[in-house]
Amino acid sequence: MSRYWSEIVHTLTPYVPGEQPKIEGLVKLNTNECPYGPSQAVLDAMAGQTTEALRLYPDPQAGSLKDAVARHHGLRADQVFVGNGSDEVLAHVFMALLRHEAPLLHPDISYSFYPVYARLYGVTTRELPLDAQFGIQVDDYLAAGPNGGIIFPNPNAPTGRAIPLADIERLLQGNPDSVVVIDEAYVDFGAQTAATLIDRHPQLLVVRTLSKSRALAGLRVGYAIGHPDLIEALTRVKDSFNSYPLDRAAIAGAVAAMDDVAWFDATCARIVATRERMTAALQARGFEVLPSAANFVFARLPGHAGAELAAGLRAQRVLVRQFSKPARIADFLRITVGTEAQTDVLIAALDTLLAR
Amino acid sequence: MSRYWSEIVHTLTPYVPGEQPKIEGLVKLNTNECPYGPSQAVLDAMAGQTTEALRLYPDPQAGSLKDAVARHHGLRADQVFVGNGSDEVLAHVFMALLRHEAPLLHPDISYSFYPVYARLYGVTTRELPLDAQFGIQVDDYLAAGPNGGIIFPNPNAPTGRAIPLADIERLLQGNPDSVVVIDEAYVDFGAQTAATLIDRHPQLLVVRTLSKSRALAGLRVGYAIGHPDLIEALTRVKDSFNSYPLDRAAIAGAVAAMDDVAWFDATCARIVATRERMTAALQARGFEVLPSAANFVFARLPGHAGAELAAGLRAQRVLVRQFSKPARIADFLRITVGTEAQTDVLIAALDTLLAR
Repeated sequence: MSRYWSEIVHTLTPYVPGEQPKIEGLVKLNTNECPYGPSQAVLDAMAGQTTEALRLYPDPQAGSLKDAVARHHGLRADQVFVGNGSDEVLAHVFMALLRHEAPLLHPDISYSFYPVYARLYGVTTRELPLDAQFGIQVDDYLAAGPNGGIIFPNPNAPTGRAIPLADIERLLQGNPDSVVVIDEAYVDFGAQTAATLIDRHPQLLVVRTLSKSRALAGLRVGYAIGHPDLIEALTRVKDSFNSYPLDRAAIAGAVAAMDDVAWFDATCARIVATRERMTAALQARGFEVLPSAANFVFARLPGHAGAELAAGLRAQRVLVRQFSKPARIADFLRITVGTEAQTDVLIAALDTLLAR
Repeated sequence: MSRYWSEIVHTLTPYVPGEQPKIEGLVKLNTNECPYGPSQAVLDAMAGQTTEALRLYPDPQAGSLKDAVARHHGLRADQVFVGNGSDEVLAHVFMALLRHEAPLLHPDISYSFYPVYARLYGVTTRELPLDAQFGIQVDDYLAAGPNGGIIFPNPNAPTGRAIPLADIERLLQGNPDSVVVIDEAYVDFGAQTAATLIDRHPQLLVVRTLSKSRALAGLRVGYAIGHPDLIEALTRVKDSFNSYPLDRAAIAGAVAAMDDVAWFDATCARIVATRERMTAALQARGFEVLPSAANFVFARLPGHAGAELAAGLRAQRVLVRQFSKPARIADFLRITVGTEAQTDVLIAALDTLLAR
């Protein structure tokens, strides 16, 4: 609190990311990182940039990365915007495309950064509740009256539940007048991408991150794809904020990550297989596990408080994430899919806890 | 132009950075990059991060880097804010500390990104003209009436002129009620830093970049130092925008850069020596060269149009920067101090041009 602050600062409630403890030997299943290291091609590409060329500014538009993203999705480079993690991309989306008179619609249980961006940029919002099964009902959005935009993750976070592409197409058809942002941070683990709808729907923006399915949380690269008009708005805001958001090593590493399809396919398949085994093991112990299309599961054990389960796991050096708010999800644990060995440790820790 | 844009997007005039051409063999003296590669310790530190650990998020507060910056300046870590280049740091400064009812004061000829940030965040500004020698007169700021903040680079850009520390101290003493931002992007090449005043002036914020004197334009790291209350405002905005603005390699590289004092001292001394030789060579050819405390000079040749000189150099593959606006500086060239060999090429190219 200080008289020097801009007024807005007093009103901010910053986003709190999952803990990044500096403790060796933790089984860290709390921030949805990939349990496997990135493609060797990424490390090689980054090493190729660790040279005296670092004295030079990077390409401000990161053209090589836009090209790689466009290749991956069968789009053109002018349909691609890149940024310093999808969190930065989302921040620019709120500023550039979602600040209108009518409220932005988003689910009541969703990525908790959305209301933070909204506060920062003065975006009015309206939360629409998930249904009884923690699902997003597209009809709720179509019936909500005028809106200044719609945003949700698919699959949703922290529930892991996905909605089918047909639902998103129906949402776009019924909502032609404001931007619809589908945040596909977790899409590669089993949901259907809306990227295929971009050429038909100029109001659709799809946001992606390289942090999860490309194992590059430590590199900070994300992107958005959509109609060139939407991309231009993002570029104008970005160029009024920071000319060079991506460093030379990050651009090169991200290009290699987009291009290594074999690593990507194999890694996603491994994680999906472990998720299914983990889900079965949790269910066998009485957990209710929401159907997940992500690299995490959202699960509760009837009769047990979420905070106590999380604390009991933590005491055994297994970190999971638990949200105290809203109350409706307080008994759920959000558990990242780890390696097979980490999953064994998790299950053994749960067995120890439940045997007490 | 699109009906989907937020209203603000229609009003933005983005900053245009110096050209980054992809042409081999250019003598690139247009964006004030360091002509020498960074410290080997930086490259080694980055290589140490190019591992499977990239799958994990970085430290969101980049604690090791804050510690390194604090060590360098003899400050505490809670007096340090770090960001993805000083451009990002400055953007957060405009949002967090400079948005007030009274106008922000800055020089009419200065870093041209300031009015861009102001537009983005709705900050009212008032430009104060440089004096006849293109200098900043602190008295003009003290006499300007109420302000919502003051910002200028020292040395100023693109003039290269510095003001003495005593002037900044006088400005702080006479302006206790709003934030004073001294943008020290170029300070290491011969100006006096205001960092030493931080403990006595809670309204002082000093902004730095690693792009120039640490030869890391390609890595994107900058920082701000000041009273913990100012740092807290920046942190709140940052944590409402992007939890992890610095990637793992950038944090490690920047720490190594701050710690390698021997490389830093030697490199700055080399550049200053070349600047003095280049200044003398330009003066010998009739150029008026403003006294520079930066890694560039700002110079004009009476009777010659700036745009024509720049084009004539470009035709000989020597790139310098020339600003068409404001008209008062249109005949100046901003020439980065390169290597000794690049300086020889520049001078030879000028001789060829002037012999025509």
